[in-house]
Amino acid sequence: MNHIIGIDIGGTSVKIGLFDTEGNMTKKWSIFTNKEDNGKYIMKEIYQSLINKKIDLEKVVGYGFGVPGPVVNGTVLQAVNIGWYNYDLALEFSQLVSNSNVHVGNDANVAALGEVFKGAAKGKKDIAMITLGTGIGGGIIIDGHSIEGVFGAGGELGHIVVEFDHPRQCNCGSLGCLETIASATGIKSEFKELAHSGKYHTFLTNIDKPSAKKIFDAAMRGDELSNVVIDKVAYALGYACHMVSLVVNPEVIVFGGGVSRAGEFLFEKIRKEFKEYKFYAVQNTIIVGAELGNDAGMYGAAYMVSNA
Amino acid sequence: MNHIIGIDIGGTSVKIGLFDTEGNMTKKWSIFTNKEDNGKYIMKEIYQSLINKKIDLEKVVGYGFGVPGPVVNGTVLQAVNIGWYNYDLALEFSQLVSNSNVHVGNDANVAALGEVFKGAAKGKKDIAMITLGTGIGGGIIIDGHSIEGVFGAGGELGHIVVEFDHPRQCNCGSLGCLETIASATGIKSEFKELAHSGKYHTFLTNIDKPSAKKIFDAAMRGDELSNVVIDKVAYALGYACHMVSLVVNPEVIVFGGGVSRAGEFLFEKIRKEFKEYKFYAVQNTIIVGAELGNDAGMYGAAYMVSNA
Repeated sequence: MNHIIGIDIGGTSVKIGLFDTEGNMTKKWSIFTNKEDNGKYIMKEIYQSLINKKIDLEKVVGYGFGVPGPVVNGTVLQAVNIGWYNYDLALEFSQLVSNSNVHVGNDANVAALGEVFKGAAKGKKDIAMITLGTGIGGGIIIDGHSIEGVFGAGGELGHIVVEFDHPRQCNCGSLGCLETIASATGIKSEFKELAHSGKYHTFLTNIDKPSAKKIFDAAMRGDELSNVVIDKVAYALGYACHMVSLVVNPEVIVFGGGVSRAGEFLFEKIRKEFKEYKFYAVQNTIIVGAELGNDAGMYGAAYMVSNA
Repeated sequence: MNHIIGIDIGGTSVKIGLFDTEGNMTKKWSIFTNKEDNGKYIMKEIYQSLINKKIDLEKVVGYGFGVPGPVVNGTVLQAVNIGWYNYDLALEFSQLVSNSNVHVGNDANVAALGEVFKGAAKGKKDIAMITLGTGIGGGIIIDGHSIEGVFGAGGELGHIVVEFDHPRQCNCGSLGCLETIASATGIKSEFKELAHSGKYHTFLTNIDKPSAKKIFDAAMRGDELSNVVIDKVAYALGYACHMVSLVVNPEVIVFGGGVSRAGEFLFEKIRKEFKEYKFYAVQNTIIVGAELGNDAGMYGAAYMVSNA
């Protein structure tokens, strides 16, 4: 039986999935991300791990990679968490495995491909995905392929500026990016700021160290302050959906990442905000949660191989 | 010699261009847009015009059309200025000319393709175009093909909401769309509103009937009120460029349409506003004016045939 290998490289671990050529995952495991010497050992350790797992490389038709940074034509422009700069991953790994069928994409784009392949947007050709984690990533898939962009910034939806009145500084240098409002970090910052303002009541006690999950839970139980925070998150995400819809008009917008575990409580609010924008043609865009969780990257990486 | 026919259908006239297969325009003319009976005679009149011009249809390899409305798979979903609804233009014209190689696109998308083919973005594969006319249209080209979107709304950049504090109503139903600020109509409305507020000085006398051109001319000559208006136009367009760049990260953003005749005076201001957004990967996006003027649609229509 022939295989596809789908690999999702993160700052902490490398997730490796073994797939059949239909895209069914038959095995998965992970190894530690060795960031020593600017990540120069990672490719060799992935190769070694495949050998250790007794994968017959002769039967691997191709390899897909998702990496945490912008990618153009198989080269990682930068992955700051790992230490790669202008790193030709495709070439390096191709040589190790003696197989030139190696595909590389940005992790958020690759996760979006995963949801198209086997998840919430299965069978759809045009989708956007917004991943709400510590930061915010995004991926735009048109006709089954992700939009890399000329500098690898296609789908960098976390850095759309959405807050003008009282913006917080974003790591990118701008003020008021979506990420400063609707990421887990943004939600916590907003909660703390408003808690100290004393304008709204909250029954949460540890106001300086809230978790995004606790804020969502409190909002669901009617906490005033938490609801103000989450309503702003929904407003900002509804605005982002509107904007993405007017640029590429996808059929589905998928929300993934840890924050999206808030589920329908959050999605309903986003849909309501989105409907405030009236341009007729995008009113029917579907907004849903992701389905593959942490496996999306491996699925998407495999999809790049099977859809090449 | 074989030909390609590129046709740009507007609310007033239909522009018809004859091209060689290299995409050189060898002849162009226009006919009146007959809107009688919901535009049912337009296709026949285009066909008749080709016959009148003694075009040998046997030597036409294909036909391209730009139309003023959303298009999906050759069908015009609606063209309100003409009266078409769910009009299968590709099928209808194919039958008239006994040639199935007929391509149809939204006029703004098609103009963007024209600029890629022979204009300001010649040879680029990923671009965005923003057309500043009475309204605002837009087109997104990725890998040489325009993004139609699932409901034909790809590139509908005029309806991105950019004004939150004192928004004006847009025809689409939303408040504060880009079109209400940076179209010719928006520029005139903004000028009138501010003129009546009396907050800024202007040497323009006919403050209730300014033209966008007069406002630009006055701004260039130092008129205070006109500069306030144009600075806001540039801010809104800079914001739109930032946003488009974070969604699809094009290499070039091209400004076309009547308002773009203001040229470098406007583009310099837009570039300055765009640079206020700091996300590194999009800082080098190139912002330029269109080159093909009213011929862009015909060129783009021909490009759809030659790039099919």
